[in-house]
Amino acid sequence: MGVEYDGSDFHGWQTQVGVRTVQQCLEAAISRVADHPLGVQCAGRTDTGVHAFEQVVHFDTTASRSERSWVLGTNVNLPPDVAVRWAHRVEGDFHARFSAVARHYRYQLQVRRTRSPLARNRAVWVHDALDLARMREAARALVGEHDFSSFRAVACQAKSPVRRVHYLEVDAEDDLVILRIGANGFLHHMVRNIAGVLVAIGRGEAEVGWTRELLAVRDRTLGGVTAPPQGLFFVRADYPEHVALPQAAYRTPLQRLAAD
Amino acid sequence: MGVEYDGSDFHGWQTQVGVRTVQQCLEAAISRVADHPLGVQCAGRTDTGVHAFEQVVHFDTTASRSERSWVLGTNVNLPPDVAVRWAHRVEGDFHARFSAVARHYRYQLQVRRTRSPLARNRAVWVHDALDLARMREAARALVGEHDFSSFRAVACQAKSPVRRVHYLEVDAEDDLVILRIGANGFLHHMVRNIAGVLVAIGRGEAEVGWTRELLAVRDRTLGGVTAPPQGLFFVRADYPEHVALPQAAYRTPLQRLAAD
Repeated sequence: MGVEYDGSDFHGWQTQVGVRTVQQCLEAAISRVADHPLGVQCAGRTDTGVHAFEQVVHFDTTASRSERSWVLGTNVNLPPDVAVRWAHRVEGDFHARFSAVARHYRYQLQVRRTRSPLARNRAVWVHDALDLARMREAARALVGEHDFSSFRAVACQAKSPVRRVHYLEVDAEDDLVILRIGANGFLHHMVRNIAGVLVAIGRGEAEVGWTRELLAVRDRTLGGVTAPPQGLFFVRADYPEHVALPQAAYRTPLQRLAAD
Repeated sequence: MGVEYDGSDFHGWQTQVGVRTVQQCLEAAISRVADHPLGVQCAGRTDTGVHAFEQVVHFDTTASRSERSWVLGTNVNLPPDVAVRWAHRVEGDFHARFSAVARHYRYQLQVRRTRSPLARNRAVWVHDALDLARMREAARALVGEHDFSSFRAVACQAKSPVRRVHYLEVDAEDDLVILRIGANGFLHHMVRNIAGVLVAIGRGEAEVGWTRELLAVRDRTLGGVTAPPQGLFFVRADYPEHVALPQAAYRTPLQRLAAD
């Protein structure tokens, strides 16, 4: 399934006792349609406050329903801040996480003198102007295969700190600065740690060469702050062609946050 | 002051006993900065669930504060869903409502097969495709000076039903359909009633000539449904040049971003 959610009122993706999570809501809703208990796995687990345009999840079921029934039936049982966009039958060896060959994220900053009520859960407020040319130059150093130890949360459990970043773009739309990043995989907090470093460079608090230095030192304690979660969106995951998920038809950028 | 708010959790602009309103929150916050009770007037009152990018409000005060102090001081005392963008000292005869020579609104529709959690309080979900060419042709009939009785809420208290619509544009951005309208003034529910009619025409449920017919019959009971409030945004108000509010400086992206 492709799943969209507003992460503002969720304690992230993963089920935990006593808090509201996306996984828990989805499992409860899909189980009602399937008429048996089931568990779901996702392409990329998200933290508290992080959103998803199109998270991909899979589950195993003995129930036989049309794709349309899975979508409509599940959505009826979901709260307003999460919804299924599509459903597609896959082979038994498909795994939302392990079959994914790439993931794409977006990080939104809003440059304004005053805080924005309408963007408050969709972008991180930056008071100072950002120098996009500096941010772009610093971003280029991160593209390619690197050891991202300096951009990895201390709690990160991945075996290897090496990832291949396919692109890292810095764009402006009205008063938003949008970071778009795609990679074969991400370490824990990797996008937010990259955003924190790029913002410091954009503000002129750090040198443009800092990203390259951080890659070389491979030491998280020398890295930048972890940027806040509300600016982060899981955009989509890519799978091998033969899987043929109906993602593209639904793949549209989101609504604009600012007035023109 | 220029004021932005997310209308989702407000019972509209106007103070009412027992419910949370924007006017009430603003008056309480500004009064704390002024150190005396005061009342605020706005350019265009908004209903429950309607947002504002830049509502304009005025108040009378005996306090002397810098424009920066009014902005920062008020924002500290406001909840996250409302914020002041700028403050500017005006002559005693200025009135946010009566001095305004034009007002601008935006109405957002989202065309998708499934509901969108991320857009749920910013756009109205339309399941069916909309024919923009039909909507644009129908919109053209409404531009100019007309009697808008067929687009006016029964409870509307305006003396005259005549208004001059300066423009009414229908655009698409990704999966959003955006209506932009500017007029010398608006009747109660006028934008939402226009949106309701245009959506019916866009869906093919009504003829393109319906807008022209409705203007002619001047009868609300023959009009369309009132479109839901969460798609509506008060964008800005215009005043005579000599008032020189600092709106424009905040209306455009920061120069540094635009230059890039």
